[in-house]
Amino acid sequence: MASMDKILAAYKERVALHEAGTSPFAKGIAWIENKLVPLHEARIPILDQGFWHSDLAYDAPAVWNGRFFRLDDHIDRLDASCDKILLKSPLPRDEMKRILCDMVSKTGLRDAQAVIIVTRGLTDVRGWDPRKLVNNLYMFVKPYGWLMQPENHYAGGSAMVARTVHRIPPGAIDPTVKNLQWGDLIRSVLEVQDCGATYPFLTDQEGNLTEGPGFNIHLVQDGVIYTPDRGVLQGITRRSVLDLCKANGVEIRVDVVPVDMVYQCEEIFLSSTAGGILPITKLDGVPVGDGKPGPITMKVWDAYWGMHDDAAYNFQIEYTSP
Amino acid sequence: MASMDKILAAYKERVALHEAGTSPFAKGIAWIENKLVPLHEARIPILDQGFWHSDLAYDAPAVWNGRFFRLDDHIDRLDASCDKILLKSPLPRDEMKRILCDMVSKTGLRDAQAVIIVTRGLTDVRGWDPRKLVNNLYMFVKPYGWLMQPENHYAGGSAMVARTVHRIPPGAIDPTVKNLQWGDLIRSVLEVQDCGATYPFLTDQEGNLTEGPGFNIHLVQDGVIYTPDRGVLQGITRRSVLDLCKANGVEIRVDVVPVDMVYQCEEIFLSSTAGGILPITKLDGVPVGDGKPGPITMKVWDAYWGMHDDAAYNFQIEYTSP
Repeated sequence: MASMDKILAAYKERVALHEAGTSPFAKGIAWIENKLVPLHEARIPILDQGFWHSDLAYDAPAVWNGRFFRLDDHIDRLDASCDKILLKSPLPRDEMKRILCDMVSKTGLRDAQAVIIVTRGLTDVRGWDPRKLVNNLYMFVKPYGWLMQPENHYAGGSAMVARTVHRIPPGAIDPTVKNLQWGDLIRSVLEVQDCGATYPFLTDQEGNLTEGPGFNIHLVQDGVIYTPDRGVLQGITRRSVLDLCKANGVEIRVDVVPVDMVYQCEEIFLSSTAGGILPITKLDGVPVGDGKPGPITMKVWDAYWGMHDDAAYNFQIEYTSP
Repeated sequence: MASMDKILAAYKERVALHEAGTSPFAKGIAWIENKLVPLHEARIPILDQGFWHSDLAYDAPAVWNGRFFRLDDHIDRLDASCDKILLKSPLPRDEMKRILCDMVSKTGLRDAQAVIIVTRGLTDVRGWDPRKLVNNLYMFVKPYGWLMQPENHYAGGSAMVARTVHRIPPGAIDPTVKNLQWGDLIRSVLEVQDCGATYPFLTDQEGNLTEGPGFNIHLVQDGVIYTPDRGVLQGITRRSVLDLCKANGVEIRVDVVPVDMVYQCEEIFLSSTAGGILPITKLDGVPVGDGKPGPITMKVWDAYWGMHDDAAYNFQIEYTSP
């Protein structure tokens, strides 16, 4: 795990350097109605339908080592999410990108998560007709977040198939529209915490694997990676896994994945912009394979972070402060 | 429709009187972190999980003619909602009621909707573990809202069974926990608007009737009222319908309602705290019965507003301003 040591050590050095800085926005920044404010002071109108009915689409690209990773892919997905539910960002893409880069620069963060939220807009006292409201945009930048703390990547995390809660079906809410309606996902977190696990895997109503709170799921069986094709967000990190598999000659199949396969497979890993490739080494309290991150998981882990040095996927942010 | 004339005329008189007033809170008031602010200036932290993951429960009792209607029933339901998803209101009931009455009084509104929202609370930069956050409370009061404008109660509204979208199943998000995750409901509004209707009826995955955005559904067949028993919010107005049916000798059955029944029945009405009893006279573009609000619908309409004069369900708010 030499590359894991190297990548995570470099990250920790950058974090330590950042923490010595003095930017008023060092802990995060928000763009609210054309004004920049420290993230922890940022507020939105209580009458925004984004709060009041969670009527919004969002996306969350990451910055790694001073570079935006696949930013245009995230904005493409945001645009697609908005199209599907009749929202439209009030800012054109170039302007959005310019402001996001300026925000990251002002925080000084070399490793960050940016959040872009398009909401239906302000309801008036009498109504919330979705076609009549003026869409709002909110953006913020915060320190890079980890669904699994870096030090835990070596041992891997503990997952569990949720029993009492199922993923919202696409016929109710389309999971390819990135949204914040996490009622089922939060129930699943509470359920698996009760059983000592951290990462819930949700099934659909037909007993197929879907996804978990903030991540896609990947299984390895006979050297082939499987990931669910439906009922899930089309994750950008999942897409990176598809890309790097193609580039590295690893077979991956996007298909219906019966939940039974999680108990048969040799390796399991999650993918998320909040942490990249996350090995799962325990499922329902039992070790997965030999209970250590497997060889294909580690190959994907290395290749994923390797993509962060590839100019095809990244661009450098110009920092005005050190 | 003599009682409809009388009740709606009295309401309009109160609204006209209110609009002549000068309270700075006349258009609404909010209670945010122990401070009262005009509703349209009220803001919540963008990092509140109530926005960021819609992790909240809420309730919305109404004030009619200067009196709170079934306030304790609403707070009972809020407590039950909170219990089910491990939330707890940071204020005890008596304090909450005292502040709500003070808020209504400050607006001067004789007819109002109060909204009480308990959120998971502020996420910190690193995580949103639902068990570790300090729950927040937000409250606001706004003018009484109508899902169907009063003048339209005479002719009734136009409903449609949503075709492409189903209600979120209880196995994903429990609809008895009053929530703001309206992705399916908003999709259904957009869908039926495209067909010229106003009120979407959502079915579950098995073809049974559930509810619509902000209302329960009631059908009348052979003099008996039917309303779905599962996959729906246990509405307080629905409960009022149950109570008044019992008091007036009208038979009502709470049961599985196959969607087919909406095409066979003689009358349809909705129930909602935002407007009470709302007659539906057109379904999928075709008149329901003779296309006018039916006799049982009108009996329920009258009895519902009659309950607002019954001290068992109401208490007077003491207004400090005229």
